[in-house]
Amino acid sequence: MATVTTKTGQVVDRMVLDSMLRRRLFYTPSFEIYGGVSGLYDYGPPGCAVLNNIVDLWRKHFVLEEDMLEVDCTMLTPHEILKTSGHVEKFADWMCKDPKTGEIFRADHLVEEVLETRLKGDKEARGQKVVVDEEKEAKKKKKSKEAKAVKLDDAVVKEYEEILAQIDNYDGPALEKIITKFDIRNPATDGNLLPPVAFNLMFQTSIGPSSNMPGYLRPETAQGQFLNFQKLLEFNQQSMPFASASIGKSFRNEISPRAGLLRVREFLMAEIEHYVDPESGKKHTRFEEIKDMELSLLPREVQLSGSTKTVSMTIGKAVETGMVDNETLGYFIARIQAFLLRLGVNPKKLRFRQHMANEMAHYAADCWDAELETSYGWIECVGCADRSAYDLTVHKNKTGAPLVVREPRAEPLKVEEWQIDLDKKKFGPRFKKDGKTVEAAIEALSQDFREKLALDLEKQGKIEVDVAGVGSGKVELDKDLIQIEKRTRVENVREYTPNVIEPSFGIGRILYSLMEHVYWSREGDEARGVLSFPPVIAPTKVLIVPLSSNPAFRPLSQHLMMKLRRMGVSNRVDDSSASIGKRYARNDELGTPFGITVDFQSVKDNTFTLRDRDSTKQVRASEDEIAQALKSLVDGEETWEDIRQRLPEFTGQEID
Amino acid sequence: MATVTTKTGQVVDRMVLDSMLRRRLFYTPSFEIYGGVSGLYDYGPPGCAVLNNIVDLWRKHFVLEEDMLEVDCTMLTPHEILKTSGHVEKFADWMCKDPKTGEIFRADHLVEEVLETRLKGDKEARGQKVVVDEEKEAKKKKKSKEAKAVKLDDAVVKEYEEILAQIDNYDGPALEKIITKFDIRNPATDGNLLPPVAFNLMFQTSIGPSSNMPGYLRPETAQGQFLNFQKLLEFNQQSMPFASASIGKSFRNEISPRAGLLRVREFLMAEIEHYVDPESGKKHTRFEEIKDMELSLLPREVQLSGSTKTVSMTIGKAVETGMVDNETLGYFIARIQAFLLRLGVNPKKLRFRQHMANEMAHYAADCWDAELETSYGWIECVGCADRSAYDLTVHKNKTGAPLVVREPRAEPLKVEEWQIDLDKKKFGPRFKKDGKTVEAAIEALSQDFREKLALDLEKQGKIEVDVAGVGSGKVELDKDLIQIEKRTRVENVREYTPNVIEPSFGIGRILYSLMEHVYWSREGDEARGVLSFPPVIAPTKVLIVPLSSNPAFRPLSQHLMMKLRRMGVSNRVDDSSASIGKRYARNDELGTPFGITVDFQSVKDNTFTLRDRDSTKQVRASEDEIAQALKSLVDGEETWEDIRQRLPEFTGQEID
Repeated sequence: MATVTTKTGQVVDRMVLDSMLRRRLFYTPSFEIYGGVSGLYDYGPPGCAVLNNIVDLWRKHFVLEEDMLEVDCTMLTPHEILKTSGHVEKFADWMCKDPKTGEIFRADHLVEEVLETRLKGDKEARGQKVVVDEEKEAKKKKKSKEAKAVKLDDAVVKEYEEILAQIDNYDGPALEKIITKFDIRNPATDGNLLPPVAFNLMFQTSIGPSSNMPGYLRPETAQGQFLNFQKLLEFNQQSMPFASASIGKSFRNEISPRAGLLRVREFLMAEIEHYVDPESGKKHTRFEEIKDMELSLLPREVQLSGSTKTVSMTIGKAVETGMVDNETLGYFIARIQAFLLRLGVNPKKLRFRQHMANEMAHYAADCWDAELETSYGWIECVGCADRSAYDLTVHKNKTGAPLVVREPRAEPLKVEEWQIDLDKKKFGPRFKKDGKTVEAAIEALSQDFREKLALDLEKQGKIEVDVAGVGSGKVELDKDLIQIEKRTRVENVREYTPNVIEPSFGIGRILYSLMEHVYWSREGDEARGVLSFPPVIAPTKVLIVPLSSNPAFRPLSQHLMMKLRRMGVSNRVDDSSASIGKRYARNDELGTPFGITVDFQSVKDNTFTLRDRDSTKQVRASEDEIAQALKSLVDGEETWEDIRQRLPEFTGQEID
Repeated sequence: MATVTTKTGQVVDRMVLDSMLRRRLFYTPSFEIYGGVSGLYDYGPPGCAVLNNIVDLWRKHFVLEEDMLEVDCTMLTPHEILKTSGHVEKFADWMCKDPKTGEIFRADHLVEEVLETRLKGDKEARGQKVVVDEEKEAKKKKKSKEAKAVKLDDAVVKEYEEILAQIDNYDGPALEKIITKFDIRNPATDGNLLPPVAFNLMFQTSIGPSSNMPGYLRPETAQGQFLNFQKLLEFNQQSMPFASASIGKSFRNEISPRAGLLRVREFLMAEIEHYVDPESGKKHTRFEEIKDMELSLLPREVQLSGSTKTVSMTIGKAVETGMVDNETLGYFIARIQAFLLRLGVNPKKLRFRQHMANEMAHYAADCWDAELETSYGWIECVGCADRSAYDLTVHKNKTGAPLVVREPRAEPLKVEEWQIDLDKKKFGPRFKKDGKTVEAAIEALSQDFREKLALDLEKQGKIEVDVAGVGSGKVELDKDLIQIEKRTRVENVREYTPNVIEPSFGIGRILYSLMEHVYWSREGDEARGVLSFPPVIAPTKVLIVPLSSNPAFRPLSQHLMMKLRRMGVSNRVDDSSASIGKRYARNDELGTPFGITVDFQSVKDNTFTLRDRDSTKQVRASEDEIAQALKSLVDGEETWEDIRQRLPEFTGQEID
């Protein structure tokens, strides 16, 4: 477990946090009463509410703010589409099987685990302090043959560290070499493994009753957007650039998922496909607005040198120096950062890591991941890739659909070229069934060769052209049949395939990392967790707490509940018999940012105390003032500090 | 095509409407450039926005208003769960194959289609007027051998009509009888069909790399909710009754989907599982609030008599007379109606139809569908079923998980019973490996039999008990081994399995039916469609239209756009060169309820005209007044009539 600390400097104990998240039903293993299925989780009421709030904010921050065209495409996808996109062939991980036990390992994860264990053993042997992941250690003590304190050569340590720094850079054959070279085996049994084989990560199914249409559950929402490009461009009244967006579930049949909410087989994605003219230099009209935003960047070169030290730089500078490929990519990287910070992500635990060459698809121009630091290490939560014109091109080539932009040229383009005219009336009878083949061969002639032929034709009155498969392979044509002239063609319309910049969000990963970032515990009471979600993200905004079960309080709390609900401020009444402190403690764990206490004073003068979760400070004011303050806090118009300065503080009761 | 009319009395022409919905990208066939897949559709920007708005309103109307516990469970579901729930065995439709052509028909749809065609032919032969579905007719003329004007016997007509009135009431064998009796064949070729066989409608897949875990895509969101019942009850602090809710995609591998958005293979559902104590009489605390709501009901008996004439009645009366089984079911039926009306559903095209016996699952106590009338006939859009304790019971029995409520009894329950004590020390050595079998047989003895044995034991000092499979099948026990006494047991805790009332919404079906309900066209201009979505549901709330491309208008429209966006009023600027009339016509088709015109007067005094889509009336006022009016219209606080009465009318320009 990587050592990460809370905002109050405590080490995040993942087991304690995780048990709290499950107890409060943020999430729970799916089908648990049937034994569960690894990599599948359900979100309970608070988790589901936070997810919905993240999605809402995403829609406001991107779709509304940038006027994107949101679409909702099906998850079921026929084979042919994913064959064209390359997923059938390439959307795979490498797995190794232990032929004796039948156990299956994901090859890169296995290499990582074994090398990390050996490095730890080396440190122990050298008498250095080792940070221990209790969870992992407990498992290993039971089963691993690797967990020994063995000193390694300095050169080997260096080699291991270099491999780990670029673990995402290896394909199957490269992993096989590493496994052989360093004698990596099944950690539990020490048994030898079979060489890595590719396992396609798509869930397969069959559409319709006759099982003649194989299909998959989509691995990403992008393909549906690409297939609709032409209709979306039309909807956008042919205006470029523009973006489509989609929010929905995607699926990956992970080989051996073990990292909780971070590696799951079914997950919520939010993806943007921004279509841009490649000849525009991928400029962005709003780049100016964000160019001074400071980012923490981990460029490709730093990683290849075996380091993970980030560079702090404005996005303007990063684009200017070429570190980030272009303005549009840079614009979205900055917007992604702004979004994550609005959610409550800790800026010190956010970095943008550039993909290395082998990590990227061959067509990609550049790619940066927003990574969040958690107890599992740095986790990729958002990808931001320049996919070039790849996707639109492959689907266009496969289907013939015009997935292109046609725009009138400001000035018509004049093209000088050698054009060929054939006398079709004579051409047909002369070549009969070979006509089409000969014509195609002539059409394919280069401009240079046409120029030569034009001269020959003028000199000799006839020419000879190579046509494979017709007669002797050479065809003679005379002036009656063919003419070649230099002419000027005027192009009024420019046709091009747009490039795609794709910011792609893993909402579940963002949620989990965020929960680690906002988690802390009250001083002197480690067991009492708090989740400091910002109000906009919190599952419930206000807890209404009657002081006791005295019936005089009930009408007041019901009235407040209805009033706040009408104002769009979600709230819950807790009139259980537990102490006020206990009721607030429960809601600290649920991340409820505010609390209203209904007490005897309230019955007399209709004033209430309002409590802030993070500081446990309280103010007291009239019903209307409290309701207005809450609305303003939840809408993000005021902070707690603003409220505290303008409403009288209340110190009458100690209820933290 | 059923004849339905718009609010202005025009007949809804489905082909015209459909072509408009596709042109405006409300929806589009998925993978169209690859030829498409029947039953799969994508929602484009306006369709997606309306869907999101329906979901938002649903969440407010049900989850927030009724404090439900929303969960988000996985779609991937292992075989075992759906085996237990009965879906593996029973979630099927009946299909007939044409052995010659390989064509596959859904049996009930085929019967329906053929009998309807014959009835139409009969009407033609009798010289009666026939309402024609042009779309269907065009297809039939090409292929159907049935489309002849043949007069039928009166008795046959009656029989056909009775079958059609209860078409959902037939299972496979019953359909087979009808097919044989009325000689129903492949309408295209007149070929005979094979008898109906059951086809399971779940999409199958395999979870994990070793393909030893078969699974399905869920056919409903309900099972995930049931499996989490215990955790949800705990989260709800053990308080009953309560409801869970879930919004998400479900899947049905339809045999031969043909009815556009109404019969699709992947669809958005919103489901509620309301858990209630069966001994409470299924009362509902808020029933009083809705009991006077008037409903249009089509009870079971009316349908069985071959009629479809609805009864108008308050829900209070319907529950009182027993037509609707209980208050909780009635409460949700009323809340469903309230929700549908808020969306803009036409109350005259809404009815609640009760399920017939064969339609319901055997465990269901009662079930009512909210049906909306469309050009496809009456369409089931919401189901509201009392599922009794079935689901929780089967999962509890299968897994042993305590899917029950335990509550302290107000007064402890005293139970007098005959209890058996075995001397375990002697029992083991005596029966050895048969011990458990004998013990189980004894535990299973009835109270009456125990009483008899107690007397025997007292009299004879020993008794004989039947234990199948042990020795001779009879076992002798003496006083040393067994004692039987009458004792009083005190039960302080009551344990019960709650019943479930399940309102289940097909969001896509609601959306399509709603679009038919709000569709009409301007008088004298049939081709100019309007979608009168209520503001809360409309994809975009306001269109901002500069009078011309004069650069003086741009800052004003940009300023309005940003201002309204900050107020949460979604809007679009259309500064294209088309005439104002054309721009408004486009937005009539997109269902945009309001328009703001920016003109020369606006530049002078910052006043704007605000136009109402439905009446095309306009008012003129200052920027702040217009913005405030819009906010109030969109939030549903004022109607257009309210605004028109308080702001000055504007009649300067004719721009409808």
